[in-house]
Amino acid sequence: MFPSSFPATEYKRVLHGDLHRFCEQALVSSGAKKDHAVAVARVLVEADLRAVYSHGINRLKMYVDECKTGTVDVEAEPIVMKEKGPTAVVDGRNCLGAVCGEYSMKVAIDKAKEHGIGWVVANNSNHYGIAGHYAMMALPHGMIGMSWTNTSPIVVPTRAKNPALGTNPIALAAPTDSRDPFVLDMATSAVALGKVEVSNRKGEKLPLGWSVGTDGLPTDDAKAAVESSTTGKGGLMPLGGLEENSGYKGYGLAMLVEVLGGVLGDASFGRKIRTWQSPLLSREGGANEKDDGGANLGQAFIAIDPGVFMPGFPSRMDDFIDQMHGLPSADGLPQVMVPGEPELNARKEQEREGIRLHDSLIDNLNQVSEECGIPRIRCHA
Amino acid sequence: MFPSSFPATEYKRVLHGDLHRFCEQALVSSGAKKDHAVAVARVLVEADLRAVYSHGINRLKMYVDECKTGTVDVEAEPIVMKEKGPTAVVDGRNCLGAVCGEYSMKVAIDKAKEHGIGWVVANNSNHYGIAGHYAMMALPHGMIGMSWTNTSPIVVPTRAKNPALGTNPIALAAPTDSRDPFVLDMATSAVALGKVEVSNRKGEKLPLGWSVGTDGLPTDDAKAAVESSTTGKGGLMPLGGLEENSGYKGYGLAMLVEVLGGVLGDASFGRKIRTWQSPLLSREGGANEKDDGGANLGQAFIAIDPGVFMPGFPSRMDDFIDQMHGLPSADGLPQVMVPGEPELNARKEQEREGIRLHDSLIDNLNQVSEECGIPRIRCHA
Repeated sequence: MFPSSFPATEYKRVLHGDLHRFCEQALVSSGAKKDHAVAVARVLVEADLRAVYSHGINRLKMYVDECKTGTVDVEAEPIVMKEKGPTAVVDGRNCLGAVCGEYSMKVAIDKAKEHGIGWVVANNSNHYGIAGHYAMMALPHGMIGMSWTNTSPIVVPTRAKNPALGTNPIALAAPTDSRDPFVLDMATSAVALGKVEVSNRKGEKLPLGWSVGTDGLPTDDAKAAVESSTTGKGGLMPLGGLEENSGYKGYGLAMLVEVLGGVLGDASFGRKIRTWQSPLLSREGGANEKDDGGANLGQAFIAIDPGVFMPGFPSRMDDFIDQMHGLPSADGLPQVMVPGEPELNARKEQEREGIRLHDSLIDNLNQVSEECGIPRIRCHA
Repeated sequence: MFPSSFPATEYKRVLHGDLHRFCEQALVSSGAKKDHAVAVARVLVEADLRAVYSHGINRLKMYVDECKTGTVDVEAEPIVMKEKGPTAVVDGRNCLGAVCGEYSMKVAIDKAKEHGIGWVVANNSNHYGIAGHYAMMALPHGMIGMSWTNTSPIVVPTRAKNPALGTNPIALAAPTDSRDPFVLDMATSAVALGKVEVSNRKGEKLPLGWSVGTDGLPTDDAKAAVESSTTGKGGLMPLGGLEENSGYKGYGLAMLVEVLGGVLGDASFGRKIRTWQSPLLSREGGANEKDDGGANLGQAFIAIDPGVFMPGFPSRMDDFIDQMHGLPSADGLPQVMVPGEPELNARKEQEREGIRLHDSLIDNLNQVSEECGIPRIRCHA
């Protein structure tokens, strides 16, 4: 909700349309169908526009590699494999995560049009970018949208030594009348791994409550924290952090995402989800359950038509947001914000002025352009 | 999830059947209908059995007073005021919160039997005790249950000075095959007010991240924290605590409960909910919107039949729970637990041996027995 301001390093501006095209071309050249490439480009560029750089174009190379190696199935189309009234199960068939996500959310919205609510779970899906993208798809329909996904285990449950859960984000988007929409999009971990990496680069100590070391105990050592997340020992703490600060609640929320995602949808869950680093090996050390080596992530997509409950929802949302904005700030602190506000502020500026991309990321994209045989991304000073 | 162990003070044991009867008699003598009194007794005794003493029989006097003064309507029965397919809106008509809660959850379960899912919101409700009680009602039906409620504002949004949100709990209960059920029941605040009060009594400093003082800044002063929660200045911090530890996520979750509860159901929400201390005045300083002076809380009740998604959910839950139990503990820490486990352990012991009640609480109950003209509660050493 309050993304850390962009580090004062060298960066270039890239127009979002250019970035979208680049992403699309890279994926098509890697074997993805055109409309699949467009879906991925949409969610990655949306993340960058919103300054959620950890889930933006920096992931393109991973997706490109997954297409090229067949880790994801570029030919596959998701399908509704089972449905009853307002519910459905989507088989992602190991397609690109954004493709499964947009398809599933559309099914949920159609269900909500008919039944007032639509609740869809997907299995055999892949990493789908920012959860908020799918939740926000409900807004043009005047609906509330929700989505969550399980992810590779890097979060250490309260009292445990090793990671067993992903950062398992939860997103909720709700329409308003004249205010900006409410968009909550949060990992259920204390912080994103990216934040720990930034502290490590800067040589800063971590606040206690972000991460545990290989002994499972809280650490302020950013380097150890980054290493632990790749070795499968230690890792991120759940939201709340230390047990005395109710870190077990964040642990419970991460489990909630699994219960209503991976477990409900009969996808992979918990420790059985493959690590990011070894796509063909699961955390358990054995081969993935699925022969195709897919991540088999479990995801949920919910659409709610507020009108089937009580009329006037959008104007009550305005009122609710105004209540928060009207609060006096704590001494010396800036104005109170609501979820989605900082991201939307960034979006407005970057849609107009171009998206800020790190020089190191530009280098990475240039490498992608070489590998894929496509033109380099156009940068502005 | 991990309730603090019972303070080593003087206490007596009370059999849960006796406590239930006492509660029922007190409420009936205060004007409540017999079946309404039974519903309230059920949820309060369940909380005490689970050692969630902050939401147990210690609240009886409040409910008794509310019945006697007409703050709640002892004659009212909740009704479905609107429904469409899997959805419904229940008008609690200012009845006792437990009555509205059990009624609404039953509607949700019936909807789920027909549609696979039931999503019910209630307005004109009152404080309903532990959210987990309503979620757990789904378990005997082999269903997943969820519930949440808004509450009187004592939580201070990130960067704000004054409270604007309640502790807004979220509960999820999920059936298992041979393991104990999964029961997450958590306030979205960093801690419950009761924990701050305990620290205050013990003269201990608070961890930074539990509470803010009247200037809106974090405080370790338990006394100031307790005072601030009654003055409407300062109060509890949302889950996550400090902004650097992602307290804005807990703030976002508290808003989620409002969006999908009070706002969706057209109940009171946010700062407009009356304070605990001045039932006829809202936080805004004006009279409540409702002429009857009711709390007009907004609540949600969701039931999900996991079988309409993928078969085998209960055994996958067993597997998921076993994954967590199988994790090695951090150096020196006890075994990893799952949500609901500590409460269920307490429940098993207290159902057998009797519920531990503080001497001060026994005094309070004796006062209730005098006021209501009913026999005193029977205590065991």
